[in-house]
Amino acid sequence: MAQTKGLVFRQLFELESSTYTYLLADRETKEAVLIDPVLETIDRDLKLLHELGLNLKVAVNTHCHADHITSTGLMKKRLPELKSAISKFSGASADIFLTEGDKITFGNQYLTVRETPGHTDGCITLVSGDHSMAFTGDALLIRGCGRTDFQQGCAKKLYESIHQKIFTLPDKCLVYPAHDYLGQTVSTVGEERKFNPRLTKSLEDFVHIMNNLNLPKPKKIDISVPANLVCGVHEV
Amino acid sequence: MAQTKGLVFRQLFELESSTYTYLLADRETKEAVLIDPVLETIDRDLKLLHELGLNLKVAVNTHCHADHITSTGLMKKRLPELKSAISKFSGASADIFLTEGDKITFGNQYLTVRETPGHTDGCITLVSGDHSMAFTGDALLIRGCGRTDFQQGCAKKLYESIHQKIFTLPDKCLVYPAHDYLGQTVSTVGEERKFNPRLTKSLEDFVHIMNNLNLPKPKKIDISVPANLVCGVHEV
Repeated sequence: MAQTKGLVFRQLFELESSTYTYLLADRETKEAVLIDPVLETIDRDLKLLHELGLNLKVAVNTHCHADHITSTGLMKKRLPELKSAISKFSGASADIFLTEGDKITFGNQYLTVRETPGHTDGCITLVSGDHSMAFTGDALLIRGCGRTDFQQGCAKKLYESIHQKIFTLPDKCLVYPAHDYLGQTVSTVGEERKFNPRLTKSLEDFVHIMNNLNLPKPKKIDISVPANLVCGVHEV
Repeated sequence: MAQTKGLVFRQLFELESSTYTYLLADRETKEAVLIDPVLETIDRDLKLLHELGLNLKVAVNTHCHADHITSTGLMKKRLPELKSAISKFSGASADIFLTEGDKITFGNQYLTVRETPGHTDGCITLVSGDHSMAFTGDALLIRGCGRTDFQQGCAKKLYESIHQKIFTLPDKCLVYPAHDYLGQTVSTVGEERKFNPRLTKSLEDFVHIMNNLNLPKPKKIDISVPANLVCGVHEV
């Protein structure tokens, strides 16, 4: 559970793509950030923001998703003050291009950007100011990790990202991934360091595992990637 | 987010029935309680308990479910020390029969039972010792509530249960329901008092709404209810 003082926090789920969207807001100033919003759930998310009296400042994507279309672009049309944000290495368009160490500030709260490439070149992990929560996108999943067989995927790079940029966080830091397919909502850095069946292996074994997953291509990749390169509004 | 000191807390989801299972444990003594475990996810749940080094004392069902089979019975076979618990008004068998005001203690933590009939006669809400979390089962859902058209369902009783036993908790008390079908993971008492489209109505309007939902019968009711009356082990 999140312990950050003065933080409003909601984990939201999109059932078809098993994607988690995260809403964070400053309880005092009501400024909010949305991480990885999904097109299909835009009405649910905007309704919740409205009911909680929050003012959405930034919608950030942890990477250019291949499995669903982001609602960032459409949300910007509905909320003209809203800024979109994504890694500068994503190749996607946005209002704010993020790099290592950048801060996304909302009221008295902030998230820090850690570059965690390997699933894609532009993958980032967002860490709360007090290091109690990490939003790991598709880099580190609960007892798993993102695939590395398309979109600039590189197993070696992913292994190094997770070990250098996520596993260096405190053991009790909560891990909130972009997806879970088994109904798990949260993990911790300590647990993943200890129990992740892939990341507890050597680099060589990890690369071998990742290069032999033989997964089918994501169903929506040919639609999602081009759309997400332009904030999700391509032909929507 | 849960603020209870020394509490290990996990929200777990079963995708087919959209059921939430909740794991609560005392960080110090490692004693744990599981609320509404689902048969299909027993291996996931037992693995997590094992990895976290927890000792499961009680598996409690908030009511006799009609939409899925509880894993309580099978879990008792795997963990012989485990006790099952359910309301004495559920008509179901269990090791512990709960009534209003009973405490389920695990280490330095406890949950208090509030009887919240209306969806079924034996529905209970479990409230954490510090009143920061309420596990409402099928009584109060996020912006909704359990149906009242089978299994002793009574709209008037449900309305009174929610108003007298849940809406009297602090506004900021987190509401963790047994289900959500829209990817919402948590709400608060304050939000539901303000925004629940059914519970903000008068008793008369609520009864009218509930008596005219015309929902289809739950798919698994003829299997689930008899199985859950005997702790879920009937013909499993």
